[in-house]
Amino acid sequence: MAIKVAIAGLGRIGQIHLENLLQLKEVEVVGATDPMAESLKFAELRGVNCYSTYDALLDESACEAVVICSPTDTHAIYSILAAKKGKHIFCEKPLDLSLQKVQEVVEVVQQHQTKLMLGFNRRFDEEFMKVKAHTDQGSIGEVHIVKITSRDPKAPPAEYIAHSGGIFLDMSIHDFDMARFIVGKEVVKVFAQGCVRIDPEIGKAGDLDTAIIQLTFSDDTIAVIDNSRQAVYGYDQRLEVFGSLGMVKAENRTKDQHELFTSNGVSSALPEYFFLERYANAYKNEMRSFIKHLAEGSEISPNALDGLQSLKIGLAAKLSVAENRSVWLDEITS
Amino acid sequence: MAIKVAIAGLGRIGQIHLENLLQLKEVEVVGATDPMAESLKFAELRGVNCYSTYDALLDESACEAVVICSPTDTHAIYSILAAKKGKHIFCEKPLDLSLQKVQEVVEVVQQHQTKLMLGFNRRFDEEFMKVKAHTDQGSIGEVHIVKITSRDPKAPPAEYIAHSGGIFLDMSIHDFDMARFIVGKEVVKVFAQGCVRIDPEIGKAGDLDTAIIQLTFSDDTIAVIDNSRQAVYGYDQRLEVFGSLGMVKAENRTKDQHELFTSNGVSSALPEYFFLERYANAYKNEMRSFIKHLAEGSEISPNALDGLQSLKIGLAAKLSVAENRSVWLDEITS
Amino acid sequence: MAIKVAIAGLGRIGQIHLENLLQLKEVEVVGATDPMAESLKFAELRGVNCYSTYDALLDESACEAVVICSPTDTHAIYSILAAKKGKHIFCEKPLDLSLQKVQEVVEVVQQHQTKLMLGFNRRFDEEFMKVKAHTDQGSIGEVHIVKITSRDPKAPPAEYIAHSGGIFLDMSIHDFDMARFIVGKEVVKVFAQGCVRIDPEIGKAGDLDTAIIQLTFSDDTIAVIDNSRQAVYGYDQRLEVFGSLGMVKAENRTKDQHELFTSNGVSSALPEYFFLERYANAYKNEMRSFIKHLAEGSEISPNALDGLQSLKIGLAAKLSVAENRSVWLDEITS
Amino acid sequence: MAIKVAIAGLGRIGQIHLENLLQLKEVEVVGATDPMAESLKFAELRGVNCYSTYDALLDESACEAVVICSPTDTHAIYSILAAKKGKHIFCEKPLDLSLQKVQEVVEVVQQHQTKLMLGFNRRFDEEFMKVKAHTDQGSIGEVHIVKITSRDPKAPPAEYIAHSGGIFLDMSIHDFDMARFIVGKEVVKVFAQGCVRIDPEIGKAGDLDTAIIQLTFSDDTIAVIDNSRQAVYGYDQRLEVFGSLGMVKAENRTKDQHELFTSNGVSSALPEYFFLERYANAYKNEMRSFIKHLAEGSEISPNALDGLQSLKIGLAAKLSVAENRSVWLDEITS
Repeated sequence: MAIKVAIAGLGRIGQIHLENLLQLKEVEVVGATDPMAESLKFAELRGVNCYSTYDALLDESACEAVVICSPTDTHAIYSILAAKKGKHIFCEKPLDLSLQKVQEVVEVVQQHQTKLMLGFNRRFDEEFMKVKAHTDQGSIGEVHIVKITSRDPKAPPAEYIAHSGGIFLDMSIHDFDMARFIVGKEVVKVFAQGCVRIDPEIGKAGDLDTAIIQLTFSDDTIAVIDNSRQAVYGYDQRLEVFGSLGMVKAENRTKDQHELFTSNGVSSALPEYFFLERYANAYKNEMRSFIKHLAEGSEISPNALDGLQSLKIGLAAKLSVAENRSVWLDEITS
Repeated sequence: MAIKVAIAGLGRIGQIHLENLLQLKEVEVVGATDPMAESLKFAELRGVNCYSTYDALLDESACEAVVICSPTDTHAIYSILAAKKGKHIFCEKPLDLSLQKVQEVVEVVQQHQTKLMLGFNRRFDEEFMKVKAHTDQGSIGEVHIVKITSRDPKAPPAEYIAHSGGIFLDMSIHDFDMARFIVGKEVVKVFAQGCVRIDPEIGKAGDLDTAIIQLTFSDDTIAVIDNSRQAVYGYDQRLEVFGSLGMVKAENRTKDQHELFTSNGVSSALPEYFFLERYANAYKNEMRSFIKHLAEGSEISPNALDGLQSLKIGLAAKLSVAENRSVWLDEITS
Repeated sequence: MAIKVAIAGLGRIGQIHLENLLQLKEVEVVGATDPMAESLKFAELRGVNCYSTYDALLDESACEAVVICSPTDTHAIYSILAAKKGKHIFCEKPLDLSLQKVQEVVEVVQQHQTKLMLGFNRRFDEEFMKVKAHTDQGSIGEVHIVKITSRDPKAPPAEYIAHSGGIFLDMSIHDFDMARFIVGKEVVKVFAQGCVRIDPEIGKAGDLDTAIIQLTFSDDTIAVIDNSRQAVYGYDQRLEVFGSLGMVKAENRTKDQHELFTSNGVSSALPEYFFLERYANAYKNEMRSFIKHLAEGSEISPNALDGLQSLKIGLAAKLSVAENRSVWLDEITS
Repeated sequence: MAIKVAIAGLGRIGQIHLENLLQLKEVEVVGATDPMAESLKFAELRGVNCYSTYDALLDESACEAVVICSPTDTHAIYSILAAKKGKHIFCEKPLDLSLQKVQEVVEVVQQHQTKLMLGFNRRFDEEFMKVKAHTDQGSIGEVHIVKITSRDPKAPPAEYIAHSGGIFLDMSIHDFDMARFIVGKEVVKVFAQGCVRIDPEIGKAGDLDTAIIQLTFSDDTIAVIDNSRQAVYGYDQRLEVFGSLGMVKAENRTKDQHELFTSNGVSSALPEYFFLERYANAYKNEMRSFIKHLAEGSEISPNALDGLQSLKIGLAAKLSVAENRSVWLDEITS
């Protein structure tokens, strides 16, 4: 029997999730909601029932699970509402920028024994999954160093940054989750530094556009992340894991495999442009994983606790920059 | 207004085309037919009207165009029937193994002023399109040599070979079309040789499993093609064009971009396994191109004449092997 | 005890061999000769005794072996003279363009039980040796197809071509030897075609500048070679061996490993420019191998018979082009 | 007129420098010294006069410049002695582990107006020079992030570590110099962390075997270095520079360019094993640069001040680990 799924929010990412849900045989999409009539149309054209409010969606669609792609400031409350009604939840990241609110979500979800999957889509990227698989099966022995390069092709507008929580919470947080995913241990210490090199407006908004973060794990493994808000050559998403028996890396996927040789040199294709291209399959795999775990009743990952940990790391990174020192993760409490 | 398209044949490749048609906004899929109830179900599940015969499909579905994915021996007759009723045609390759029949299709299509696109899907592969684009825009100057490597991951069963027309008509024909596509001139001379190295059963069926073919074009450009029915490492599809100002190549796409370094060496991913994976996007682009040209009323390519030329090259290659000599293309007449 | 070696001819390649000989502990360089005073100076500066004629070199230097790097038309006679005096010989390729003369060298060398190593330097290139090693140890199973790309960065002057024997004897002959080296069997049939695409002067001199050659071996293995006298992007020297269990290839070595990513694309380094760069190590390995085999008294390879076989293939290729047909190697007799 | 050069110390690296000096036409090697008779033999065999002591070498060989490759604890005093006698100096790194001594060398060299080149050989590696050239000519715009991976194939014995100054002074110091070389600015702040993951004996000797260091430059550029004393897959030496207009990287050079495709995957060659292989050309370029600058009387680089700066960074890194905090470079004073 198909799982009944509703979707809240039909912006860019919501439309992707809806398309992917519609391709899954194990799913019946029972409803959608979005405040914008135009966005709703996307669902209507695909034969999905539309509801005017989130409450109506939860109450009337008979959904068993809800996929939350609405604006960030609704994630926590929508998750809590869904959990209280016994619905399973897929929620886009971040749950919230407030530690307290995220902790509340964790608690409510536990209380109501529903499941919440958090949209750390990169865990489902085939390149990174391959690196994870090699790491887990011992191909490189004990992990010593994790290196993550994560650079966006273009800086977001300053108004986005004003509400995003800043580079560590809107961008690096994906990398914090990736590091935790790969190492499989908890971070104990954070050192971060950053600066404004790309756009002074970002600095005026109180944020950074270039950053390096070191995470120290409980077993002494060190992860080092380099971030930039603007790599003019495209979306740069690389991962390298170094260990006692070797190294495994994932290089960028390129737009194509051509190579042009002329007297001037050899030229080839740039990395795929941005997350919609690079992570198109990851979004599919992610939704498939969510549905599979619901169907099997098995443990879902990444979950709200994963969101909580990455949020703590992000807050520690902010503190580290502010005070120019290493910050222990257990200093970060609500 | 959407173009009304019907589909005949819902085997593996028919299902792919149907899925791709259903994703195109400019298309209304008005009917499907297949002698197998199970195959029809695939269409029914997607809300497509099913017809019990090809005739019924043409007559009753109000289609403007038909996509023919039925068995090879029906391609010519189905195309002719459709053309006579004024329908446009997308037909899977080959049109037929008989030169005479293919010529008949060419004529009937011309007579009835319909359009026929032939399913040489590789022209729509993004790697090869990039090579073509560089060649056309002069990046490598005048073309001197074209090299095509085309190896299947696994040999087909001997019974397939008995009806396929042999390696030059079932496999190399794609490469003949690719060479013509890249060079944009006509082949005047063919030299081919081959042998049985993989499976003696293939030899008993009168065919080869390993072949090298040289095509000489009217402007002296030489294309050289190497084929094998079994590359144990996967589907090997490479193209290289060498000219007065440089070289452009398309390497295989790999399953992923990981690299594993251990004391034993560096290992990385194999090429994508077979045509369903490698050419998934090519099939989409191909169908999009068909529809776009119908919508615009523009010239369709590749068409039945392209099929005729590649068939002639294939027949010349067979004769070349049989007589161990170069064969001029104009020796090949029905 | 060091082996006493003399060297005849101190042009570009002679200087390379002399430098390499001087680095070998097992060698004492006992003499050099060259008609040009300037070239002799190169030897003098390195403390090598100089002789005014080849005869004087052989008679007075007490050499046990002679390295012949003089002009091509002296190779056969110098080899014969040396063999008759019981000297071992390293001779630059080709021994001669006349089948008869080469056969004479083969016989004289055998008669006098001296050893002759022929300068097919590419057998000692580390890339190709790696491919050979994998092929020999069965990594790719039974060999089915060998592919050789061999393109010079720049066409030689027309006057060179007038005396070179043409593209098959001055250029492809290296590739014929490589194919024989890899396959370890004899060629039985040759098909070649070529044209003039780069420089009409080459055509006027009766030669080709672009060629594709197919070699069929006694075990049905097919080698296909593509040659161009001008690859504007540098010296293109690639080898690919395909077999029942896989494929092994050697890509070009590049000038360096840098990669530059900008908004325009990715650029990287060209292949090494020409044979002096690409085969610098091969020349060292080659001379080391010559000396090692002399010291051990073991069989030397490649030898005069290897030269004879490649010459026959070259002559067959010429005949194939002239008569536009496959030529059996045993048609080629003096 | 040739420059008269003497060499002190004929261990592994001294022999390399001697060989390279002997190949330079602009150089006359006028003397060598080494306390080990066996090492001296290496020079004798090459016709170099040998002296029993360093003083004798300086006084009697009539050298204009001396190349110091003796043990580390003699570098400073040998440099000072040479400078006082008006000799130019090439000195292997490090000058000394004591800040005070290095400062003394700097002063003495300045006082006596001789020139001292410090053996930071990596500045002369062709890969890194290419990256430097692209950076300097603006290919990637303003530099934001420098990433250096530097991992040895094998940990040194514990007794070496006891006298080496530890990982930051014996290993990372090369990377500190590379970062300064690329950025062309001074480091103002250092954060480092490290641990013992490879060999507990290293820990017992009070050192680390795994480390990550962040350097902040005066213009906000951040360099991040990852070091390991044991990469089982070989010597891992990579450099990446990211800037406002792009990125340029130098990947490792591999032992060869072969690729083996089997049903198990694709395998290829490991990086060159260690510094003798990887930096063979760099040592040549370095010595050529030293001689060229002497001949031209131009400014030499890297010099003693470069050694001083890298030593300071190393000491700052040690302090950073000890106190788990960022260290300002100007905290480091003798």
